[in-house]
Amino acid sequence: MNASSPIRVGAVLFEGFELLDFYGPLEMFGLLEGEARITVVAEKTGRVKSAAGPSGMADGTMAGSSGFDVLLIPGGIGTRTQMTDAPFLAGLKRLADASRMVATVCTGSLLLARTGLLDGHKATTNKRVFQLVKTNAPKVNWIARARWVEDGKYFTSSGVSAGMDMALAVVAKLRGREKSLEIASRAEYEWHEDNSWDPFATAAGL
Amino acid sequence: MNASSPIRVGAVLFEGFELLDFYGPLEMFGLLEGEARITVVAEKTGRVKSAAGPSGMADGTMAGSSGFDVLLIPGGIGTRTQMTDAPFLAGLKRLADASRMVATVCTGSLLLARTGLLDGHKATTNKRVFQLVKTNAPKVNWIARARWVEDGKYFTSSGVSAGMDMALAVVAKLRGREKSLEIASRAEYEWHEDNSWDPFATAAGL
Repeated sequence: MNASSPIRVGAVLFEGFELLDFYGPLEMFGLLEGEARITVVAEKTGRVKSAAGPSGMADGTMAGSSGFDVLLIPGGIGTRTQMTDAPFLAGLKRLADASRMVATVCTGSLLLARTGLLDGHKATTNKRVFQLVKTNAPKVNWIARARWVEDGKYFTSSGVSAGMDMALAVVAKLRGREKSLEIASRAEYEWHEDNSWDPFATAAGL
Repeated sequence: MNASSPIRVGAVLFEGFELLDFYGPLEMFGLLEGEARITVVAEKTGRVKSAAGPSGMADGTMAGSSGFDVLLIPGGIGTRTQMTDAPFLAGLKRLADASRMVATVCTGSLLLARTGLLDGHKATTNKRVFQLVKTNAPKVNWIARARWVEDGKYFTSSGVSAGMDMALAVVAKLRGREKSLEIASRAEYEWHEDNSWDPFATAAGL
């Protein structure tokens, strides 16, 4: 990828995904307009039901994708099933390995962790399920207080709405801070640009 | 509807809708879990492409729906086409009339205004297209500085991410402020509870 070619964003869907984990970051990447190209993938193409009910649509398959500039992995109650689904995790590991950056929201970091790729890396997740995540992926250096964590090619965000702040940080990394400020303004979104901002860690007693 | 029956949320899709306008509020209603039931409708069932690319899915038709407790109307570039689509606007007017509350995000208020239902009412919209909206719906009392506006059964929000703040205000109206605070916390979302908070009006020179 160079500065003039569109950012190829791949976004992974699975049954029981959380709506805002997925579409919040995609809104921010979408506001890059011609500077980003979004592909929604799942194990198979077609509709995928969210935790809240409404379905998203997968246009491509994980197996048919060769990697992206940014791979987005949402969380949601469906992660509790996916975290022990070996074929799904194998496909996710292959895609994450083949992608330049990987960005997870909420318990999406648990799925990435279960591929082994986060072992020895710093990462964060939803503060309400912090213990669950630590127990199921003990080799990750889980950071309790952070809106999002960047470690090498991995960006992991805190719960649900934190994905939007992280997505803007990813955009800033790839296209500069001014671009992220412009996108936040167009979305009338108050970007939490400081990733140490995390009142939800305190609220969860962490 | 009484306090013990689920809130029936109807959400309208059209080509070129803005992802976060739609899924941000649905995230908040979705966190009501058993206390809300979301139905996605469009002129016909099936996939509906967003402004950013990814498609949503309509499970029902506008014509086949008899009204909701809350009707959600998103904005997006597609509103520029829908605002002159008479059959669509007729269907939207019927649904809005038949619904207990109507909540719009961004230029969704322009669509509602074009049905005539907002005439004489206070409303707001995205601050970057304020003049476009005023020109195309001159009988509405457009409010420049507001995160969202409540007037009778109509809630209209400012641009994109403002829909989440408005949705939490709708939940507070129907289920109490404590419920909205709980949902915001679960989404790790910093609710702008004061609807006079609107730095984007200033930024747009309004």
